[in-house]
Amino acid sequence: MSRRIPVSYEGSPCYEIYLEQDFGRLLSCIQALGYAPGRRVCIVSDTHVAPLYLEEVIDALRPHFSLYTSLVFEAGEASKHTGTVGHVYEHLISNQFDRKDLLIALGGGVVGDLTGFAAATYLRGIDFIQIPTSLLAQVDSSIGGKTGVDFLQYKNMVGAFYMPRLVYINLSVLHSLPREQMASGMGEILKHGQIQDAAYFQWLIAHQNAILKKELPVLEEMVYGSCRIKRDVVQRDPKEQGERALLNFGHTIGHAIEKLSDFSLLHGECVALGMVAAAELSCRYGSYSREDCQKLREALSAFQLPLRLTEPAFSPEQVLAATRLDKKMDGGCVKFILLRRPGEAYITRELSDEQILEGICCLF
Amino acid sequence: MSRRIPVSYEGSPCYEIYLEQDFGRLLSCIQALGYAPGRRVCIVSDTHVAPLYLEEVIDALRPHFSLYTSLVFEAGEASKHTGTVGHVYEHLISNQFDRKDLLIALGGGVVGDLTGFAAATYLRGIDFIQIPTSLLAQVDSSIGGKTGVDFLQYKNMVGAFYMPRLVYINLSVLHSLPREQMASGMGEILKHGQIQDAAYFQWLIAHQNAILKKELPVLEEMVYGSCRIKRDVVQRDPKEQGERALLNFGHTIGHAIEKLSDFSLLHGECVALGMVAAAELSCRYGSYSREDCQKLREALSAFQLPLRLTEPAFSPEQVLAATRLDKKMDGGCVKFILLRRPGEAYITRELSDEQILEGICCLF
Repeated sequence: MSRRIPVSYEGSPCYEIYLEQDFGRLLSCIQALGYAPGRRVCIVSDTHVAPLYLEEVIDALRPHFSLYTSLVFEAGEASKHTGTVGHVYEHLISNQFDRKDLLIALGGGVVGDLTGFAAATYLRGIDFIQIPTSLLAQVDSSIGGKTGVDFLQYKNMVGAFYMPRLVYINLSVLHSLPREQMASGMGEILKHGQIQDAAYFQWLIAHQNAILKKELPVLEEMVYGSCRIKRDVVQRDPKEQGERALLNFGHTIGHAIEKLSDFSLLHGECVALGMVAAAELSCRYGSYSREDCQKLREALSAFQLPLRLTEPAFSPEQVLAATRLDKKMDGGCVKFILLRRPGEAYITRELSDEQILEGICCLF
Repeated sequence: MSRRIPVSYEGSPCYEIYLEQDFGRLLSCIQALGYAPGRRVCIVSDTHVAPLYLEEVIDALRPHFSLYTSLVFEAGEASKHTGTVGHVYEHLISNQFDRKDLLIALGGGVVGDLTGFAAATYLRGIDFIQIPTSLLAQVDSSIGGKTGVDFLQYKNMVGAFYMPRLVYINLSVLHSLPREQMASGMGEILKHGQIQDAAYFQWLIAHQNAILKKELPVLEEMVYGSCRIKRDVVQRDPKEQGERALLNFGHTIGHAIEKLSDFSLLHGECVALGMVAAAELSCRYGSYSREDCQKLREALSAFQLPLRLTEPAFSPEQVLAATRLDKKMDGGCVKFILLRRPGEAYITRELSDEQILEGICCLF
């Protein structure tokens, strides 16, 4: 095993994604970046992940770094705001971290986004490393340098593009990942297939059982494939000025549902619902076939993702209104991602509110 | 007139510094960057500068941008903190600013640093333009992409390297600048000569009278010279991994005094005091001559900058302690900038506490 995916940023080699089966090579990967033993390290994690893996990561680092510290915050989206970033700053200040020290994000997307933003802004930027422990973070949020937190009630309103020095994926941690979190990650993985790689999508369907059984070689193949798709897109368009927006397939309506459900639905579940709606619109107003639409729906179901809302506490019109408020707006138009065929997505600004509502309605 | 200084960032052309005598070309400079008329513009300023120039800047932009707004905060260092950044975010959210809109910093260093940081982090980064109105901001803080604010009681603890799209300097605004603010700017200007360009330092002394009388052609020559020195340094070392630290000549002790005096002394005054101490140490422990040291002291005096503290409320030992707490620490050692000769500075980590204290004592 032990695969690497190199990632470039603005044309230059920037960092590597390591796929491993344990934390055994973590220290050597970090040492290869040249941190002196006298450097301080702060591991940021949350109350779900820290009890499982914090000690193991500290044990892995101890031989080299004598000055380590950790900061564990309450797990969940509710922690992802500017106030928690302030706690990270305070922790770093009180432990006298300077510009050459190192932050490590050990956890899912919330931990990674928040730690990355703290790293981007503490003393105008210190190094950080991603150790993503959820499937979603492994294939999506840890790659590409998007960091950020919520401000007041606004999602991801404050952030920065800031690259990690290294992404270290230990695939074995997926064995402790709750079923619904696995499903949530599968939402983004199926999306990667639909927007960029039809053969990968087929492979996922063909390996459904092994994936659900969490067989490591198949998980590795899957995470490797998904990371490569995400890597290719963000390399070509690091700051989301064009193509990177295709990764938002399923996210336009998905984010609206996520907000309206007050985050009781997981991100990947909302993306799945958003994909159902967007696939429907891709059939009605584009060239996507009914057959492919049905295959996508079956794949989502097979990976335990929802196709419609169960007892929603909001109306289709409210979803539309929330969609229009989302920051994917561009000069008054909703930017929508549709599918031409499996493996090929495109951006449109030409859907009317009525049309978008039709897509939303098929979730109710 | 109308001079330009192009600035590169990490090897690529990035933005230009315009030297002008009024706001007449502001709009055409901004238009040249390609902003569509439908774009929103927010001008951030403070209670000192807004009454003087906000209306004039809005008038200059109105023909092109119909959607402009402004945000004016209380002038002074006390506003430069994460809370004020939050006010900027709120203002931008409530005015529905998106990623393609524009922030303009109209003011001195505090306005520029704070607006730049808000721009760096709102929606992971929106464009901003610097219109520096203090001499200090024109020759120093508006150039090089350092943005940041205070966090709790810690100075510039939170920030980002984030480049403006344009720096527009209207030299005429210096006519309304208070005497002590002019002197403060001269502190950084004399520093530029001392660390990089002995001939420029000589030129400043030779043009002392015209500078103090604020004769525009001489001010232009001076600002142009100082901007070029700063530009050259930040181009070669944008992230302060080496040479850029030379710009901290006078700042190690200067920052400590600034903090201990609770910002009752202006930044350039503190830098002047820091230079007096650092020049003394450069004589005692380096090759800087007594004669050059005396010339520097005379120049500082000539431009109405202090050579010693008047009735300080703190001791030399407190200055030393504050110096050691400053973030210019590097693995336990204070990074100190000394002079080899006028125009040539170097970094040393080898001064003992006792030696640094000798430098500090000559200010008392």
